[in-house]
Amino acid sequence: MARLVMKFGGTSVADLERIYNVARHVKREHEAGHEVAVVVSAMAGKTNELVNWVNQMPQVTGTNAPIFDAREYDSIVASGEQVTSGLLAIALQSMGVDARSWLGWQIPVKTDNAHGAARIEDIDGSDLIKRMSGGQVAVVAGFQGVAPDNRIATLGRGGSDTSAVALAAGVKADRCDIYTDVDGVYTTDPRMTPSARRLERITFEEMLEMASLGAKVLQVRSVELAMVHGVRTFVRSSFDDPDSIDSSNGANPPGTLICNEDEILEQQTVTGIAYAKDEAQISLRRVSDKPGIAAAVFGPLATAHVNVDMIVQNVSEDGSVTDMTFTVPAGDLDRALKTLESSKESIGYEVVQSDPEMVKVSVIGIGMRSHAGVASSAFQALADKGINIRAITTSEIKISILIDQDYTELAVRTLHSVYGLDKD
Amino acid sequence: MARLVMKFGGTSVADLERIYNVARHVKREHEAGHEVAVVVSAMAGKTNELVNWVNQMPQVTGTNAPIFDAREYDSIVASGEQVTSGLLAIALQSMGVDARSWLGWQIPVKTDNAHGAARIEDIDGSDLIKRMSGGQVAVVAGFQGVAPDNRIATLGRGGSDTSAVALAAGVKADRCDIYTDVDGVYTTDPRMTPSARRLERITFEEMLEMASLGAKVLQVRSVELAMVHGVRTFVRSSFDDPDSIDSSNGANPPGTLICNEDEILEQQTVTGIAYAKDEAQISLRRVSDKPGIAAAVFGPLATAHVNVDMIVQNVSEDGSVTDMTFTVPAGDLDRALKTLESSKESIGYEVVQSDPEMVKVSVIGIGMRSHAGVASSAFQALADKGINIRAITTSEIKISILIDQDYTELAVRTLHSVYGLDKD
Repeated sequence: MARLVMKFGGTSVADLERIYNVARHVKREHEAGHEVAVVVSAMAGKTNELVNWVNQMPQVTGTNAPIFDAREYDSIVASGEQVTSGLLAIALQSMGVDARSWLGWQIPVKTDNAHGAARIEDIDGSDLIKRMSGGQVAVVAGFQGVAPDNRIATLGRGGSDTSAVALAAGVKADRCDIYTDVDGVYTTDPRMTPSARRLERITFEEMLEMASLGAKVLQVRSVELAMVHGVRTFVRSSFDDPDSIDSSNGANPPGTLICNEDEILEQQTVTGIAYAKDEAQISLRRVSDKPGIAAAVFGPLATAHVNVDMIVQNVSEDGSVTDMTFTVPAGDLDRALKTLESSKESIGYEVVQSDPEMVKVSVIGIGMRSHAGVASSAFQALADKGINIRAITTSEIKISILIDQDYTELAVRTLHSVYGLDKD
Repeated sequence: MARLVMKFGGTSVADLERIYNVARHVKREHEAGHEVAVVVSAMAGKTNELVNWVNQMPQVTGTNAPIFDAREYDSIVASGEQVTSGLLAIALQSMGVDARSWLGWQIPVKTDNAHGAARIEDIDGSDLIKRMSGGQVAVVAGFQGVAPDNRIATLGRGGSDTSAVALAAGVKADRCDIYTDVDGVYTTDPRMTPSARRLERITFEEMLEMASLGAKVLQVRSVELAMVHGVRTFVRSSFDDPDSIDSSNGANPPGTLICNEDEILEQQTVTGIAYAKDEAQISLRRVSDKPGIAAAVFGPLATAHVNVDMIVQNVSEDGSVTDMTFTVPAGDLDRALKTLESSKESIGYEVVQSDPEMVKVSVIGIGMRSHAGVASSAFQALADKGINIRAITTSEIKISILIDQDYTELAVRTLHSVYGLDKD
C-alpha cells in the first residue's frame, strides 16, 4: 500500500472514451489499496484553441495590441483542466469509486505572481491526505494554481508534469507516475536509433541533463522539482491495458523509475545520448583579448533576451586577439546578430560568422564522475567517422559536442554504440 | 453619470467578433463616464456541449448510473463563462479600456449549497465598487458563485440574468441593462400578434406575472430579485450598432424599463397578454365533497413532483359530490394520471378525464386593482368569438383563462385588441 500521484496528459484525456480509460487505470490502483491523487491536463487541442482565441482577440478588435494580460490568459486557459478534472471525477463516481475534483485555488496550489509561467511556491496537502487516506480519489486540475493576487495562475505550457511532481511532494507521495505516450526513458531517441534501450532506472541528475539536452519525455522543471524534493517519478505508458497490470507490486509494468543514485545498484558509466537540434553557432573573429571582453559580448545579448548556451574562448597565442564561439537557439540568431552588430564598436571584433544549422549531441552518465577517458572515447569515435567537432562543453556528468546538423544521426548512433548502450 | 451593470447572453458572445461587438457597447458606456460592470454568459452552444459530456459520461463508463455529482457538474459547466469573461476583458484592454475579469469565487458571489440550481445569498460589492469608481470595468462571469463548501455553484440554466440583477443590487447600481435578442418587452408575443407594441415601462409586479405566465424575455427569478431589491432593469437589443447610441441620456435607445410603479406616469389598466402552451387539464368527476379532499388529491401529486397550477373546485349542489379541475405541465400528465390512479381509493372519485392540449392565456395589468369590469370584458370578448373557457384563476393584477390550444392565436389577438393594446 502506497500513496500515489498519477498524471495523465492531453492525449490521454482527449475524449470521453479516453477519460474512461484513465478512470480504469485509477480504479485499478485504488482497488489495489493505494491512496491515489490524479493530475490531468486539458483535452488535447483544447489549450491550443483557448490560446489562439486569446492571441486573436487584439486582431479582432482591430487594435493589434502587441501585449495581452497574462492574468486573463491564465483564467481562460486554465478552464480546460477544470473540465477534464470534473469529467474524470464523474467517470470514477459512476464506476463506484469515491472521487472529487480539485482546482488550483481550492487546494490551494500557491504560486508566485508570474502569471503565464508561474512557479509553485507551496501546496498544502493536509486536506487531500486526510481524504485520500479515507479512500477518496483526489482528481486535480493540472497546470494551475492561485497567485497572491487571488487570481488563477498557470505554470506555462507542459506544466502538468510539474503540477504532478509538486503535488506528490505536497502530499508526501511514495511515487509519482507520469503516464505518457512512451513506455519510459530511452538511452537515446528510439525513432533515430532503433537499438535504443529503455532504461529501468535513471538518477534525477541524469534525467535532468537528458531533459535539458533534448529528451522530450519530461519537462525540465518537473525533473528539477523531483530532484529537490526526492520524488520518485515513474514514466510509463498510458496505452497499456488498465486491467492487465498488477498494481500490487509497485513499479511492475514497463517504465523508467527516476530516483536517487542509491536506488540504482549497477550504475553504467554512460546512461544515455541526447541531442538538441536548432542550435546556431556564432563566432567572433579577432576579438581583442582583454579583461571584460566576455561581459562586453554577453551583456548586450542578455539584455536582448538571447539565450546563450555553449561558450568557447581560446587563449590567444600572443595575448592580443582571440576568437570567441558560442551557440544560441536558431530562432534567436537574427536578434543576436543585430545586437552584436550594434555593439561592434564597444566589443571590438573584426568579423562575425554564423551557422544556423548545428546540433548539440550530449553524452550523459553519473558514472563519468569516477571514470576517466569517457570524453576521449567520444572524440575518437567521432573522428573515426570524419565528424568535425565545432565546440565542446563538459560538466561532471555530461559531455556536449557541437557538430553540423547533417551528422546528427551518425553521431548519435556512433556514441550510443561506443558506450555499449545498444540492446542485445 | 451612473453606475451600470450590463448583461450579455450566449448569442451575444458566440464568437470573437461578437465579443468585440459587446466590448464596443461597454466602451461606449464607459466613455460616457458611467461606472460599468458587465455580466457575460458562455458562448452559445458551449454550455450544452459541457452538459452533454456530463450526461454522457456514465454511459461511456458502461454503468448508466442514474445520478451524477452536481458539484462536478457545476465545476465543469462554469468553465464556459470563465472563458468569455477573460476574452471580453482582453478585448476591452486592447481597445484601451481598463478591465479585469471576475469569477464567482473571486468576488465572491456567495450561494447556498444547492449545487446545480443554487441561489445567491450575498455579493460583497465593495472591492468592485472601488475599482469601478476608479475607472476599471468589472467583467463578471455570469451563472456562477461559490458555495459554503468552497466549490463552484451554478444558478441553473439561464441564471446569468439573475447574476446580473444580483450584482446590480450588490454594487448598488443605478440600472441593470439586459442586452438580448429582442428590443424590449412587448404587450404580447409579436410573432403571434403583429399589432403588439413595445412597452416603454412596466412595473416589477407586472413583469413578474408576464415572465411567470409565458413571456420568455427574462428569467422569473431575475425579476423577483429585481423587485425585492428595487433594481431598475432595462431590456434592450444587443444588435443595435454600439456607436449609434447616445449613452449620456440614460435609457435613451429603444427598450423597456422595468421599474417601480411610481416611475410610470400614465398606468394602463392592462399592460400585456401572456400565454403558456403545454398545459394539460385534469378533471376528477364526482369526487365526494368532504373536508380534506383537496389534501387527498394534491398531497400525492406533490410527492410525485407534479407541478399543479390552476385549481377549480365547484361548490356542489347537494353537498355530496363535486367535480375538481386543475392543470399540470403536459410533460407531467402521465405521472399525474398514474398517481391519481393509485390514489383512487383514498380520494374517492368516480372517473378521471384529461386533455393534454390546453393553453393558459393571461391578462396582466397593475391598473386592474382599481378598475372594475376588466375580467368581464375578457369573458365577453372570448364568448363573442365562440371560445369556450375551461377554467379561470385570478390575482390582484392578472386574470388567467384556460382554453383549447387551437384557439390560442384568436384569443390572444382578441384580448390584445379589447384592452386597447394594438399599435396605432
